[in-house]
Amino acid sequence: MTIADLATPALLVDREALEHNLAAMSRALPGARLRPHVKAHKCTALARLQVARGHRGLTCATPREVAGLAAAGLRDDLLLANEVIDPARLAALARLDARVTLAVDSEETIGAAARAGLREVLIDVNVGLPRCGCAPEEAGRLADLARSRGLEVRGVMGYEGHAVGLDDREMRATKTEQAMQLLRSAHDLVGGEVVSAGGTGTFDLNTVANEIQAGSYALMDTAYGRLGLPFRRALRVLATVISRAPRYAVADCGLKALGMDHGNPSIDGAKLWFCSDEHVTFTPQDAPLPLVGERISVWPAHVDPTVAYHERMHLVDGEDVVETWPIDLRGW
Amino acid sequence: MTIADLATPALLVDREALEHNLAAMSRALPGARLRPHVKAHKCTALARLQVARGHRGLTCATPREVAGLAAAGLRDDLLLANEVIDPARLAALARLDARVTLAVDSEETIGAAARAGLREVLIDVNVGLPRCGCAPEEAGRLADLARSRGLEVRGVMGYEGHAVGLDDREMRATKTEQAMQLLRSAHDLVGGEVVSAGGTGTFDLNTVANEIQAGSYALMDTAYGRLGLPFRRALRVLATVISRAPRYAVADCGLKALGMDHGNPSIDGAKLWFCSDEHVTFTPQDAPLPLVGERISVWPAHVDPTVAYHERMHLVDGEDVVETWPIDLRGW
Repeated sequence: MTIADLATPALLVDREALEHNLAAMSRALPGARLRPHVKAHKCTALARLQVARGHRGLTCATPREVAGLAAAGLRDDLLLANEVIDPARLAALARLDARVTLAVDSEETIGAAARAGLREVLIDVNVGLPRCGCAPEEAGRLADLARSRGLEVRGVMGYEGHAVGLDDREMRATKTEQAMQLLRSAHDLVGGEVVSAGGTGTFDLNTVANEIQAGSYALMDTAYGRLGLPFRRALRVLATVISRAPRYAVADCGLKALGMDHGNPSIDGAKLWFCSDEHVTFTPQDAPLPLVGERISVWPAHVDPTVAYHERMHLVDGEDVVETWPIDLRGW
Repeated sequence: MTIADLATPALLVDREALEHNLAAMSRALPGARLRPHVKAHKCTALARLQVARGHRGLTCATPREVAGLAAAGLRDDLLLANEVIDPARLAALARLDARVTLAVDSEETIGAAARAGLREVLIDVNVGLPRCGCAPEEAGRLADLARSRGLEVRGVMGYEGHAVGLDDREMRATKTEQAMQLLRSAHDLVGGEVVSAGGTGTFDLNTVANEIQAGSYALMDTAYGRLGLPFRRALRVLATVISRAPRYAVADCGLKALGMDHGNPSIDGAKLWFCSDEHVTFTPQDAPLPLVGERISVWPAHVDPTVAYHERMHLVDGEDVVETWPIDLRGW
C-alpha cells in the first residue's frame, strides 16, 4: 500500500523521523530516566516502541490511557499523572493487572484513591503552572496523610508547563530551575524514590527530576518545532486538493482533523488563509496552484489534540505505508 | 440515571433547549425549507428528530456522514455539500441505498462523480467565502458539462460563510443579500429546482435560497450565542473539579473535549484562565471556589469540532439523563 491509496484526511507518521526522535531521546534519557507521556500519541503501538527502547514506565493523562496500555500488556509501571476523584474509575484502575501509580494533590484525592483500593501514589506539586498540584509546603502533610491511609508514596511530581514552551532557551532553563527548586523542597518533605517532571521542551534542562515525562518529542508539532530541539517533525495530515480558484486552492483537512488551540497548521511553501470544519484554504508562494486531486501535507500546530481526532495513524517510509496503528487510547 | 452518575468529561444536551431550538427553526423554516446540516452534531439520533419534524432532506460534510445516515434509514434526500474526488469513496456513495446528491465545482469533480456512478449533483458556487465553489459565471458551463456526462443537475448551492457569523445583523443581511445575488445569477445559468445555502446565522435573512443548510441552531455555542438568535444554548461539557488552589480551581475538561478554533469555552460566573489537554483552570467571580468533586458546566465556543471529540452525548432533563446517543458520524 502506498500513500496514494489512503483516503484523506489521513494522519501520517514518517518512520525515519520517528525513529530518529525515539533514538535521540533514548540517548539523552536512557531507560527509566524517561517516562514517555502517551497523551501525545494515544497509541499503544507507538508506546510499545518506546518501551522496546527501554522506557518501561509510561505516563498517562486519563484513566482510559492507563486501562488501554494495561490491556496491551504494557503494565510494568503506569503513572496516571493527573487527579481522579471518580470512585468507579478509580476502582477500575485498582482492578487492573498492572502497576498503577496515581497523582494526588489533596485530602479528597488521597481519600478517594485509598477507598478505591489504589496502592501507590505520587504527591503532585504545583511548581508554577496554575493547574493541579499542592503547594510545595503542603506536600509533606499530604504524604503523611496518604501513608496513614495505607498508600505507598513513591515520591513527587510537578510539571513545569509554564516553562516547556518558552522560545528562549535561557528563559526556559531559568524557569525550569526555579520550578525544580520547588519540587526539590517538596521532595525533601515527602521522600520516596521518584521525582517526576519535565516535558519535551525541558528534557535536557531539567536535571532535578529523575524521570522526564516527555511525550511530544516522538511526533513533534510546529509549536515545539520552533524551539530548536533535536527532534524532527514526524506527524502530518495528508490532504487532497478538492477545489481551486484563481488565487487559492482548498484541501480536505480542517478543524476536525487538527488541534487548533495553538493556531493554524502550516503547509510548506504556502500561505494558509484559514481552516473551516473540513477545509483548509491556502496559496503556494513560489509554485503553481496544485491541481484538484493532488495531495498536500498539513503540519499540525499542536500534536496532542490533533491525534485525538483520528482513528488511526499510518507509518510511512517515503511513499510506502509500512504499518497502520489504531489510535486506541482516545476518550476518557 | 442522573447526571451525577456520568463519568466526566461528558457532553450534555438539554432536552428543553434542544426541543425549543428544533421547534423554533421548524416554525421559521418548515419542511423542505430547512435542510439540517448534520456536521454540527454528527449524531443520527438527533438527525432523526430533525427528520421527524418534517425536514426530510439533510446536509452532510463528509462521505461518512452520508453513509451513516443512509445506514440509519435516513435516506430520502442526502446532500453531500462538499467536493469529493476520491474514486473509492464516490463509488461507495453511489452504491448506497439512498438518494445522494453531491456538490461539484470543477471539471475534475464532475468527471469523478460521473465515473463513480453518482446520479445527482448541485453546482457549488463561490458567493464570497474563499473556499469551494466555482465562479458564478462558470456555473452554467459546468452544469452543461455535468448534464453531458449523464448527471442530473438539481440546481445550485453557495454558502455565505463569510456572513453567517457577523455580529451586526444589518451587516449580516447586506452580505447575505450580496452573496445571494451571485447565487441567483448562477442559478439563472444552471436551472434546476434547488437553491441551497445559508446557515444558522442567516436562517431568517437568506430569502433567496429555497433550502437553508443550518446545523448549529440545534445545539448552539457561545460564538453563535452572541448574535441574538432565537435559539438557546443546549450543549455543554459536564466536568468535575479535581483540584483547587487558593485562587483557582481545576476541572477535567480540556483541549481534547472542546473545539478551540473560536477560542476558550465559557463557565458561567467564572473567569477562565486557560485550557490544557485535559484541564480547565478557572476562578468563580462572585461565588466561593467549588470543592473537589463538584460538577461544573463548560460551554463550548464552537459546537462542531467539540462534538467531533466525543463518543456520545447525553440528553438531560434537569438532573435526569433521559437518553444517551452515540455520536456515530465522526471521522471521514
